[in-house]
Amino acid sequence: MTAAPPSLDRRQAEALDAADPLAALRERFVFARGGPLYLDGNSLGRLPRATAERLERTVRDGWGEGLISSWDEWIGWPVRVGDRLAAAVLGARPGEVAVADSTTVNFYRLAVAALDGRRERRTIVTDRANFPTDRYVLEGLARDRGLEIRWLDPDPIAGPQPGEVAAVLDGDVALVTLSHVNYRSAAIADLPAITALAHDAGALTLWDLSHSGGSVPVELEAAGADLAVGCTYKYLNGGPGAPAYLYVRRTLQERLRNPVQGWFGQREQFLMGPRYEPRPGIGAWLVGTPSVLGLAAVEEGVSLIEEAGLAAIRAKGIALTELAITLLDAWLGPLGGALGSPRAAAHRGAHVAVRHPAAERLCRELIAQGVIPDFRQPDSIRMGLSPLTTRFVDVWDGFERLRALLA
Amino acid sequence: MTAAPPSLDRRQAEALDAADPLAALRERFVFARGGPLYLDGNSLGRLPRATAERLERTVRDGWGEGLISSWDEWIGWPVRVGDRLAAAVLGARPGEVAVADSTTVNFYRLAVAALDGRRERRTIVTDRANFPTDRYVLEGLARDRGLEIRWLDPDPIAGPQPGEVAAVLDGDVALVTLSHVNYRSAAIADLPAITALAHDAGALTLWDLSHSGGSVPVELEAAGADLAVGCTYKYLNGGPGAPAYLYVRRTLQERLRNPVQGWFGQREQFLMGPRYEPRPGIGAWLVGTPSVLGLAAVEEGVSLIEEAGLAAIRAKGIALTELAITLLDAWLGPLGGALGSPRAAAHRGAHVAVRHPAAERLCRELIAQGVIPDFRQPDSIRMGLSPLTTRFVDVWDGFERLRALLA
Repeated sequence: MTAAPPSLDRRQAEALDAADPLAALRERFVFARGGPLYLDGNSLGRLPRATAERLERTVRDGWGEGLISSWDEWIGWPVRVGDRLAAAVLGARPGEVAVADSTTVNFYRLAVAALDGRRERRTIVTDRANFPTDRYVLEGLARDRGLEIRWLDPDPIAGPQPGEVAAVLDGDVALVTLSHVNYRSAAIADLPAITALAHDAGALTLWDLSHSGGSVPVELEAAGADLAVGCTYKYLNGGPGAPAYLYVRRTLQERLRNPVQGWFGQREQFLMGPRYEPRPGIGAWLVGTPSVLGLAAVEEGVSLIEEAGLAAIRAKGIALTELAITLLDAWLGPLGGALGSPRAAAHRGAHVAVRHPAAERLCRELIAQGVIPDFRQPDSIRMGLSPLTTRFVDVWDGFERLRALLA
Repeated sequence: MTAAPPSLDRRQAEALDAADPLAALRERFVFARGGPLYLDGNSLGRLPRATAERLERTVRDGWGEGLISSWDEWIGWPVRVGDRLAAAVLGARPGEVAVADSTTVNFYRLAVAALDGRRERRTIVTDRANFPTDRYVLEGLARDRGLEIRWLDPDPIAGPQPGEVAAVLDGDVALVTLSHVNYRSAAIADLPAITALAHDAGALTLWDLSHSGGSVPVELEAAGADLAVGCTYKYLNGGPGAPAYLYVRRTLQERLRNPVQGWFGQREQFLMGPRYEPRPGIGAWLVGTPSVLGLAAVEEGVSLIEEAGLAAIRAKGIALTELAITLLDAWLGPLGGALGSPRAAAHRGAHVAVRHPAAERLCRELIAQGVIPDFRQPDSIRMGLSPLTTRFVDVWDGFERLRALLA
């Protein structure tokens, strides 16, 4: 490694690690000997040690020995894990969150429910930089139902601003749906302000929290948010393909309707009665048999968030991304790199996008050297700095490697 | 235990076990010391030893060490496992089956696709004894789309016959959807004949294979079946909440449309392009991030089916249920028990329903004694005789216990 300017000595990063109140929690995750420098915890979070053990117990004791009788306990997990997630991560109340199915399936179900709830209105508002699966679902719904999508086209770094949303709202808008934290830029949308604007126009809101849940505080209740979904395999460390969550504001749970009426949403499920009668509350928003292993893993991930506390996680996320931006400005700016994320900490989630015309090739070369960020079209290297598992020296080393490649 | 009539000596069951070509495969499953006499493998199949190991590897090596790079392999699993399932279990061709999501979500998606594919028709045909989740989904779709459901009301033991289906078919029927094997009676519907009748009327068919897949041969291709779904946690031993499968006949994959357009169905998924462009083939029928652990478990379950061969599994399923019926007739008939399943082996899946007015109480008492069947409203004790894990002496012992309770 070539020498860095003295103001950016690696010892500064070491000092930040030494003072990090969350440093000890890193020991609770699996780190393979000789493993990569992993800056992609925002794509797939690391494996908690407790999760590996919990999964083994769930497989051997719960399934292998308990067999069908274990369902007496498992049946409550989608709502139990949802309640813990509601309190620790989402700023929601007990009985407002359930964990099951994929983010996309949940997004579809809640979008349909909202559109059914505003049938006299024909317009959906979202933005062109929103996560692809959300855009694709909406495109299909708009086609099938003959609706219009009003596409916001916000600044790619700042993301959609309340004023831009306000400008397209009118009495024809049924649904405003955005990501809370943008998957590419990490821009934080102003969830309370946009929710209030949507409500003023009589529209419902559906938030995708996949890139904020577990890294940035979410206050669904305080904001009066209507509906939300999010994934658990990023900052919640639930593992590959772990079930997603959905939030339905209490006052809407019986006014809106789950379009996929399955037996897990049925009152007295095992009476297997002749007609669908939805369970009261959030239970009506379940559908089919949920993944028990997935739920076990999500619960362990949420336990770690509870232990760390979201305020401390957020503070470290800000400090990690601040360090990343300092290094980016000092080292990569002169070499053609540019910040692809908001500069103000209050508007930025827990990852940093480095824009460079050769981003795709640089990403491949970093990976070949054992540094794992990810590439996002067209020109972004996404440095994911998952607060529970990323050290300040990891940021330093990752940027140093990128600097060396560019130099 | 009181002595049985000599013609029903337990040694006969022992002899059947001694001659069972699948007996050795039982060693490949986990049996807890002192565990129950388990006659509910049709609700939750047992844990294969290889699955416990595969899950541990997938968690520790795949997720814990491989991290995001493991997705290079995982991404192909929904179709790879689907292809193995297609060949070993479903009589389908490569590229016609995918494994992901729950049975209910898949049933909803394929039902919507079929109804969209026959938009000018306004009627769905199904039967009142069909599995609840299928009925509930259809009830919701009929309400939301203003359709009529023509409910068949077949004999509760024999299930819907081709003639009964023919009698309600006309040019207004968009979709005929039934279970291949009934969850309560185990009646096998005549899938080829009913499919042909539906096609003659211009309707599409959607089969629920949850209670046949892995226990009764299914020949989707030969029957010209259009669409099918099924679960993997029964006879396929995929574990609690393991992902379900869906089948879309090759010629329909691009003529029908997946109503839930998610990023896993997108061509060049990671380009994250502005418009949804479905992948060719069965890939277009994927939606969100699939459960990797679930897929690993399903693949191990399918491996065991491949090794055993479905013909041998079916032969043992028939022999087990024949023994059950012999014991039921001899012991329980005189005590108020009656067969709630078809008497002819060709029309019966791998479980046997024992009807008795006190079925619910009897079931509770059996469970208290360590014998695990399950109860189905209003009066059936379901004895699930999963062929890979149930011995003939288990059938003998289970029925003997029930006889003793009744006597």
